[in-house]
Amino acid sequence: MAEGSKVIGWAARDSSGHLSPHSFNLRKTGEEDVVFKVLYSGVDHTDLHVVRGEIHSPNYPLVPGHEVVGEVVESGKEVKKFKVGDIVGVGCIIWSCGECLSCKSKMEQYCHERILTYNAIDKDGRITQGGFSSAMVVNQRWSWSLRCDYCKGNGASCDCNKLFSKKREEALEHLGADAFLVSSNADEMEKAANSLDYILDTVPAGHPLDSYLSLLKVDGKVIIVGAAPTPLQFIASDLITGKRNICGSFVGSIEDTQEILEFWAEKGLTSMIEIVKIDYVNEAFKRMERNDVRYRFVLDVAGSNHE
Amino acid sequence: MAEGSKVIGWAARDSSGHLSPHSFNLRKTGEEDVVFKVLYSGVDHTDLHVVRGEIHSPNYPLVPGHEVVGEVVESGKEVKKFKVGDIVGVGCIIWSCGECLSCKSKMEQYCHERILTYNAIDKDGRITQGGFSSAMVVNQRWSWSLRCDYCKGNGASCDCNKLFSKKREEALEHLGADAFLVSSNADEMEKAANSLDYILDTVPAGHPLDSYLSLLKVDGKVIIVGAAPTPLQFIASDLITGKRNICGSFVGSIEDTQEILEFWAEKGLTSMIEIVKIDYVNEAFKRMERNDVRYRFVLDVAGSNHE
Repeated sequence: MAEGSKVIGWAARDSSGHLSPHSFNLRKTGEEDVVFKVLYSGVDHTDLHVVRGEIHSPNYPLVPGHEVVGEVVESGKEVKKFKVGDIVGVGCIIWSCGECLSCKSKMEQYCHERILTYNAIDKDGRITQGGFSSAMVVNQRWSWSLRCDYCKGNGASCDCNKLFSKKREEALEHLGADAFLVSSNADEMEKAANSLDYILDTVPAGHPLDSYLSLLKVDGKVIIVGAAPTPLQFIASDLITGKRNICGSFVGSIEDTQEILEFWAEKGLTSMIEIVKIDYVNEAFKRMERNDVRYRFVLDVAGSNHE
Repeated sequence: MAEGSKVIGWAARDSSGHLSPHSFNLRKTGEEDVVFKVLYSGVDHTDLHVVRGEIHSPNYPLVPGHEVVGEVVESGKEVKKFKVGDIVGVGCIIWSCGECLSCKSKMEQYCHERILTYNAIDKDGRITQGGFSSAMVVNQRWSWSLRCDYCKGNGASCDCNKLFSKKREEALEHLGADAFLVSSNADEMEKAANSLDYILDTVPAGHPLDSYLSLLKVDGKVIIVGAAPTPLQFIASDLITGKRNICGSFVGSIEDTQEILEFWAEKGLTSMIEIVKIDYVNEAFKRMERNDVRYRFVLDVAGSNHE
């Protein structure tokens, strides 16, 4: 098992999910690999579920992080897509077979042999480790080009909790929402019944689907993208008599993802985030869990002290 | 409230679901209505759920039956579609508004003002009563033409329990199935993983969806048509990472239904059924509930003594 650079990641050791520094070696750089220094890493609820063993069997020590931005420091000899100094993005998948129907249909994210960015078994038998780490090595196919202004985090960060005390005002006035509906408000929900074509359901915890289904038009879809660790429930007749659909969708393909990143860069779009140092990650998990973040923690990995 | 002919239906009086004769008057025949003598009525698991109050609030006395074949005995003056002596079929809907998006899109079955064949409030305020009855009155739009050989029940009935002792043999040799898979057989299910485009899920009782979802290819669909009275459950990550879908579908439109009836007549298709007299209906419910029917009870309503 050939080894590459020594790196420091922040790893969970047990199902408490508490992260602390962990030293390990990257794999040796392959011909198609890029090695990059991690600049920033988003903190997602799925990270918390995985480090606690709530949705997959955990392989400890486990370094999470699947929304990663980095700067290339080394590239394999067959790498054409990037050169040293380029800014790359990596998501939750680092390899797919390239041969199956999903791969050949440009839906590589559904490849049955895909390897997830962390807590998965890599081709050399090691456990993959994610982006809460000083550096990573990833096949060039599953790395995307990023334009620098986005990835530097400029303009996107704000102390949103001070700016916005009310979610409704925040959504309508600052995020450009056309409407704001609170699912626990029975009157508002009743008025909005049968009015929506789609609902993108990002809730990462158990929640009742019936009230969401009631909002859909005939043939409407609730698209589930949040990995709730407990089963979700619905009443069959709600689905049947309204011709409603519950659909799953898993990130984007290689092409989709590059396209959306370019779209964001072209339109100058940014996200509302809160940038913190990596030693704040355990506190960030706690605050994320009680919805105390507007709207995403991003770890300033390169600017952090890892020891 | 103008009244038409006096009829005898078999009604439930309480949530025991036990049916017994019940005398009531049809509504007065409207200009667009056909009155028909009921010949046959299928027995569906939904009938049992409804008479017991398991999926809708029951309005007792409640005459079920939503798979009805009859012979026209009277028609309103605007009825062009049928004449006295014609054979008609009626399903689970007897009226839709004709004005909404669903109606104008030829998906009338999803009209929010639709009136169900029984246990619903009709336009004159009466509770609708179903096909376990000597006669019915229905708007011509929601009545379909049937060719006589089908509807006479010829050739379709058999004492299937004697013929077939094993379901697998029955499905493969007599029903023309290409394959037969038992969901409780873990080895068979494992081999069949990721192999199906669609599953038509007709199970009318609570059941785990996870094992069915595992059979689907990427973007495959479980289409739910059985109205289980208890909530169905799934694991979000099964739906997400496999791009799987759970969809509802409610009977056919007016056009779809006529088309499928003509297709069956043209191809000479029949169903395996067991024809019984109407006073056997309570026993039929019991047997249906323990899966002791191949594959449908049909009540010979016209040939039964209703008293």
